[in-house]
Amino acid sequence: MAKHASFDALTTETLALRLGGLEALVERLGPDRSAWKVREVGDGNLNLVFIVEGPKGAAVVKQALPYVRLVGESWPLPLKRSFFEYHALVRQEARAGKGSVPAIYHFDEAQALIVMEYLSPHVILRKALIEGRELPRIANDLGLFAARTLFRGSDLHMTARERKADLALFAGNVELCDITENLVFTDPYFEAELNRHTPALDPLVAELRADRDLKVEAQRLKHLFAANAETLLHGDLHTGSIMVTEDDTRVIDPEFAFYGPMAFDVGMLLANFWMSFFSQAGHEQEGSRASMRGYLLRTVSDLWSVFRAEFSWLWRTERTGMLYADSLFEKRGDALGAEQALDGVLHSLWQDLLGFAGVEIHRRILGLAHNADFETIADEALRARCEAKALRFGRHLVVNRCRIHSVDEVNGLALLIEKETRA
Amino acid sequence: MAKHASFDALTTETLALRLGGLEALVERLGPDRSAWKVREVGDGNLNLVFIVEGPKGAAVVKQALPYVRLVGESWPLPLKRSFFEYHALVRQEARAGKGSVPAIYHFDEAQALIVMEYLSPHVILRKALIEGRELPRIANDLGLFAARTLFRGSDLHMTARERKADLALFAGNVELCDITENLVFTDPYFEAELNRHTPALDPLVAELRADRDLKVEAQRLKHLFAANAETLLHGDLHTGSIMVTEDDTRVIDPEFAFYGPMAFDVGMLLANFWMSFFSQAGHEQEGSRASMRGYLLRTVSDLWSVFRAEFSWLWRTERTGMLYADSLFEKRGDALGAEQALDGVLHSLWQDLLGFAGVEIHRRILGLAHNADFETIADEALRARCEAKALRFGRHLVVNRCRIHSVDEVNGLALLIEKETRA
Repeated sequence: MAKHASFDALTTETLALRLGGLEALVERLGPDRSAWKVREVGDGNLNLVFIVEGPKGAAVVKQALPYVRLVGESWPLPLKRSFFEYHALVRQEARAGKGSVPAIYHFDEAQALIVMEYLSPHVILRKALIEGRELPRIANDLGLFAARTLFRGSDLHMTARERKADLALFAGNVELCDITENLVFTDPYFEAELNRHTPALDPLVAELRADRDLKVEAQRLKHLFAANAETLLHGDLHTGSIMVTEDDTRVIDPEFAFYGPMAFDVGMLLANFWMSFFSQAGHEQEGSRASMRGYLLRTVSDLWSVFRAEFSWLWRTERTGMLYADSLFEKRGDALGAEQALDGVLHSLWQDLLGFAGVEIHRRILGLAHNADFETIADEALRARCEAKALRFGRHLVVNRCRIHSVDEVNGLALLIEKETRA
Repeated sequence: MAKHASFDALTTETLALRLGGLEALVERLGPDRSAWKVREVGDGNLNLVFIVEGPKGAAVVKQALPYVRLVGESWPLPLKRSFFEYHALVRQEARAGKGSVPAIYHFDEAQALIVMEYLSPHVILRKALIEGRELPRIANDLGLFAARTLFRGSDLHMTARERKADLALFAGNVELCDITENLVFTDPYFEAELNRHTPALDPLVAELRADRDLKVEAQRLKHLFAANAETLLHGDLHTGSIMVTEDDTRVIDPEFAFYGPMAFDVGMLLANFWMSFFSQAGHEQEGSRASMRGYLLRTVSDLWSVFRAEFSWLWRTERTGMLYADSLFEKRGDALGAEQALDGVLHSLWQDLLGFAGVEIHRRILGLAHNADFETIADEALRARCEAKALRFGRHLVVNRCRIHSVDEVNGLALLIEKETRA
């Protein structure tokens, strides 16, 4: 740890002492640091997260650890991910607007810590969905967030020089990319050491791991993920990276940010709604989730629709980068040419996002990092039934992604699988 | 020019004085620098190239200029391209083997100069093809060069960490990428200032620039070029970047090197043979070029065949990167899965290379940087007829690239266009 000699992990006891002089904190909490209350609430896989409350207000202090918290010190992970998270948050706020991510108050690179807005009474979206809450704004807010960050971070909007410099900056986020590359695209498809799954799934898991078409397509998606550097991704855009209230939606935790394919963020996001859909049967003991199922499929459909509309709007009004230049289309009286190109881009994005959605579903059930949606289903047989449906759905998406035309078709497939396997 | 304060362009008069103390040169030429003979032979668009001969031997000194030589000081171009050329040469030699590129004797970053092997009696391949020389080795040598550099520079072979670091390094080659991005993919398709074409082509040029499908596809290819960073490309792999004898083939001038799609190098290379094919009628006054035409199409077909064979061999023996890991295939007794994936990669590469070949043909006839193949045809009407055939051929490739199955089909199309328009 010599190269992190100055790094020192915060504790609830030391935080006020160590950060008591920080203007960004004092301003929000009040100067009497002896009155600050500190709680550690990090329930994620990687970091320390403190909520600090003082007489005037509150803030969050997020600090990276030099290893994977979920696994322990045996799996080192560089503190530099905090640097990438900070730079991603700054760009996301600029591109998606204030209030789309937590406000940033302070960044300390050596201590790998970010002081940011305390979101309250926000809850993690995944938790809300498990509870059966139908949040009214998420389809719209997340559709806009994805369209704006993905479009404005690409050569559709930026100058080539600016994007290439940023690409080089984020190319340093190797270890976090490595996690995705292995845990999402490869490990789930063979007996990797860190994998686990609900035992009753054994026969289906064996079937999937012997499924040549599935494995080849998953690797083609990995190739696309690794090679296509078209935009700055969030990189981990699932329902655990989103905090919500009835009227606010914030995207958090972009430490996996790097330049990758647009479809990855959108695919992962939709996958998490589809997983929530298949997990609802596991949470039905407290009452029917029929309405919730409808809400989730509507959310997917609305989100994709908002994304398309916003992306198309940006295409028509902010296409200032070097790709599909208006000098070839609008300025030559050929606006339809630009529309044809837009259809092409959205069509590719659609096909790829279905693939990424499928592998995201598989890795959450077969790999290392599982989802609370399924994990909180105590009845193991019931959980396995929910997971099996999701696995079959994911397999269909990965292998057939170039032959599926609409989101309604995918939602129809989800309904079919849900009903068939319940009968 | 303040930031290049120490840079000073060499001249034939100053070279021996300034580089006389350089061990790399003294060793090859002999210590008596007053006996060195210096000639400037740069006929390219960008740089100074000196041949220095002494009592013991000879060497080449290539120096970048801080502007585009073809255009003048009004178009500045960073000296740093010499840095990228040097680093690309080192990697190409490691990947394709000694003797595939000129040996490097010395690199001076501040003076943007590379001292390298003097290739003699080599000539530029393009010149040889214009003269109607049927070089026996190029299909094999270039097929191997492309397969080895493209495969071994990608995530199929390298570690992800190493490739991402290298990607970041070459992301600095912004200005040279910018030249390709604009001059290859966009300018030819509208009335850009620097464009020129043989006047008799006016009606066809107007038709192509009004061709919506062509423009949209050219921009999709630009999107692929800009976004897909799968391997270290040569970046300018045409017949003017290759030096040959009957039994030696060397690839030179990789200053456009950057991480891009494999298909770009292969597509540009094949395009230049097809252009040579269509230009042969313009050089027929000294004798029939029927045999030469056959040779050129055979070269295309053999090159692609050698490329496929070598790429497939490397796939089976050196697939040590993170993509298509053998832990999913061979190690599970599923070698056919790896073959299925290989077919997928080669199929995409094939479709994309046809597109890149098409735009390369267009930009060489409609853009700024033309080819001697056509330019040396003095009879303007004859030249226009040759160029028109190539333009139609290129349009077909760009728009129909996903529906063309084999190289024989493409060569058949070339023959058809050649015959039809001669009739």
